[in-house]
Amino acid sequence: MTARLRLYHFALDPASRQVRLALAEKALAFDLMDASPWDPDGPLASRNPSGLPPVLELADETGVRVAACGVRAILEYLEEVSPDPSLLPGGAIERAEARRLMDWFDTIFDAEVNAFLLHEKIEKRLQGLGAPEPANIRAGREALRWHLAHIDALLDAREGLAGPRFSLADIAAAAHLSCVDYIGEASWESHPAAKAWYQRIKCRPSFRPILADRLPGLPPVDGYQDLDF
Amino acid sequence: MTARLRLYHFALDPASRQVRLALAEKALAFDLMDASPWDPDGPLASRNPSGLPPVLELADETGVRVAACGVRAILEYLEEVSPDPSLLPGGAIERAEARRLMDWFDTIFDAEVNAFLLHEKIEKRLQGLGAPEPANIRAGREALRWHLAHIDALLDAREGLAGPRFSLADIAAAAHLSCVDYIGEASWESHPAAKAWYQRIKCRPSFRPILADRLPGLPPVDGYQDLDF
Repeated sequence: MTARLRLYHFALDPASRQVRLALAEKALAFDLMDASPWDPDGPLASRNPSGLPPVLELADETGVRVAACGVRAILEYLEEVSPDPSLLPGGAIERAEARRLMDWFDTIFDAEVNAFLLHEKIEKRLQGLGAPEPANIRAGREALRWHLAHIDALLDAREGLAGPRFSLADIAAAAHLSCVDYIGEASWESHPAAKAWYQRIKCRPSFRPILADRLPGLPPVDGYQDLDF
Repeated sequence: MTARLRLYHFALDPASRQVRLALAEKALAFDLMDASPWDPDGPLASRNPSGLPPVLELADETGVRVAACGVRAILEYLEEVSPDPSLLPGGAIERAEARRLMDWFDTIFDAEVNAFLLHEKIEKRLQGLGAPEPANIRAGREALRWHLAHIDALLDAREGLAGPRFSLADIAAAAHLSCVDYIGEASWESHPAAKAWYQRIKCRPSFRPILADRLPGLPPVDGYQDLDF
């Protein structure tokens, strides 16, 4: 792929982070464009009917055009147009398991954890929607503990989340967990297998830009960027 | 693929319907196993960590094993193992657009329409959770009108939802709309382009089993199965 890629993203959006990680793992150069999911006049409104990040644009000799909208479409697009290195397992059933986990984080984790913790502690803050609701924080924390225990169990039962090869399942899990880790909500000490796995992911060069993210007025907790946490 | 396929599904689940349609379009024989998404001791509980349909199993000489869980994983799995006929467009950017639309229906339509109309009129009824909440019915109907107008606009602007070839985008849209149509909520008369498109989909042989679905105690409205509605 010789055309230049441009990614419209929001730093604390797990879907955008998955695409940044996949692009970096595939060593694809791209321009990163900040875009707020809450801005009705921002660049996302005219590029994605949902108004949501991520959106991937392709600039080549024919001009600039939208290549793909949304994490599901973008990650499959990148696997198709830039298959080396592949970020999916080698067998069809194993790829289905990786995609099951991607969907798990993008829908179930998103609804049970992000909709509470990221909404209460990031979205409300950045949009000036008032103080976090304690009952929602509690619900999000309880769900997050369950999800971390589930990841522990998966990692105890098999080599890697979706098999031995680093895959989009690892990227999905790490992208989501890194956002709740930014606000200090991931209780790594109680989840040793998940912690060891996240420590390995954090050491990958593709993860460095994620660890350098800083939201204005909302810095990460101590330890967010530490490889030894 | 010579192995026998088995699909655990729920008749009024849009995700399950997408898989039934894709299997039929690819002329793959399969056994259809009824499974309730609300049964903690049912077959889904032991097969999919989410407990949700659809789940595709593969029976071959090595035994029965889960091939794929969830609509996202299953549809990509079927494209990989049974690529003829393909249910995705020919170009990478066009495939990304088809996947954007699949995700649109599985997440946005699901949250804005199904979570209100299917929940209030089907799930609550079948689970004995009481009468529908009028405010939720109104919210779902308003969202459905918006989505049908959006489909009209897409079909006016291009040939087919995601291009001229019948694709998984059509299957996703038709699977979701057919569920709200079962309960008489799709106002086709106000949406001529969407109606003409749905009429063409309904005539496909793959759609016949969908139109024959009957929930015990909750029959479809008149017109649900009619090709000329």
